[in-house]
Amino acid sequence: MSDAVEATASAEHHHHGYIHRKDDYLKRLRRIEGQARGLQRMVEEEKYCIDILTQVSAMTKALQSVSLGLLEEHMNHCVVDAARQGDAEAAVKIKEATDAIARLVKS
Amino acid sequence: MSDAVEATASAEHHHHGYIHRKDDYLKRLRRIEGQARGLQRMVEEEKYCIDILTQVSAMTKALQSVSLGLLEEHMNHCVVDAARQGDAEAAVKIKEATDAIARLVKS
Amino acid sequence: MSDAVEATASAEHHHHGYIHRKDDYLKRLRRIEGQARGLQRMVEEEKYCIDILTQVSAMTKALQSVSLGLLEEHMNHCVVDAARQGDAEAAVKIKEATDAIARLVKS
Amino acid sequence: MSDAVEATASAEHHHHGYIHRKDDYLKRLRRIEGQARGLQRMVEEEKYCIDILTQVSAMTKALQSVSLGLLEEHMNHCVVDAARQGDAEAAVKIKEATDAIARLVKS
Repeated sequence: MSDAVEATASAEHHHHGYIHRKDDYLKRLRRIEGQARGLQRMVEEEKYCIDILTQVSAMTKALQSVSLGLLEEHMNHCVVDAARQGDAEAAVKIKEATDAIARLVKS
Repeated sequence: MSDAVEATASAEHHHHGYIHRKDDYLKRLRRIEGQARGLQRMVEEEKYCIDILTQVSAMTKALQSVSLGLLEEHMNHCVVDAARQGDAEAAVKIKEATDAIARLVKS
Repeated sequence: MSDAVEATASAEHHHHGYIHRKDDYLKRLRRIEGQARGLQRMVEEEKYCIDILTQVSAMTKALQSVSLGLLEEHMNHCVVDAARQGDAEAAVKIKEATDAIARLVKS
Repeated sequence: MSDAVEATASAEHHHHGYIHRKDDYLKRLRRIEGQARGLQRMVEEEKYCIDILTQVSAMTKALQSVSLGLLEEHMNHCVVDAARQGDAEAAVKIKEATDAIARLVKS
């Protein structure tokens, strides 16, 4: 994401308060950051390729698990709120979520 | 991967010399590490969920691209070597590679 | 899905009326069925493996596109209805949808 | 795949003889064709969306399993042959296989 997009998102959506288990997510993301450093060490030392790929798969799974958790919280918060405002409001949020899910499925 | 498995792999496979563009991979993995830190910041500040998911998709794509590049180098090096040793040797390496590909496809 | 599960689902959910573009989905699924028959022909005639894999990728993409469309309709219908009944009702439907999304992401 | 591409592939690669368990693949592909018909029935009767998505996931998994099996056979046959012809010949086949794997990973 570009800095510009991030800045806009920040202005609009800062402190939405939708993330209930923030410490849990931060802990998991720090572990993922550690996996990224571990991969650099494995490449630096030319570890066996298959072992590196196994590590990449583990890291991808960890990332997907974080994103599915955040998606569930988002739907419980933003999509539910929108649903109570009206069908049109809900449709916009659901389209946005479905597009994000499509990107996850294809990534 | 457990430390024990990593240690074994290290002993057996250290300095295989199969990674030709090591600096390129290290640069990409450092960028991925930076994305993991960026995600922590986004969760910390409760940025908009959809923007976080977009970032996760970008990071997953970057990881997959690294793993596909390493897989290609591995096949050009280890699988080709094994193919020249014999059908049985090739079959073992190809089974191992296919299992790793299956984990990538499903992760 | 087992016949038993399908029978239960049928009893509970028959004629939910949530699929707005039914003819479009049926047309796309008939095309997917045709792709499955095309794959049998390619394997029967031992067409080049890479061409078969390309066809499998196209078919998988077509399936995912159908499932993402149905998911969007489901959320606009069932999840929105549940959201208007209450937080607990919404949470149940959203958990169910997230579990289905997790299966799509990992399949 | 377009008919033109299929025709070319057919001319070039017909009867490669690389598929050892042809009957097994045909049986699995007929089952996948049956799943595609089952999905049409579920959409026709507006079965519960989540059950349809579960069926799509099962079908996608079955397709991926077929493609991974074919890929393994292809590498044992075509990639091994190319490896014995020379590094350049191997590199071309491995690049082609890696591109196909990339399409599977992203589909």
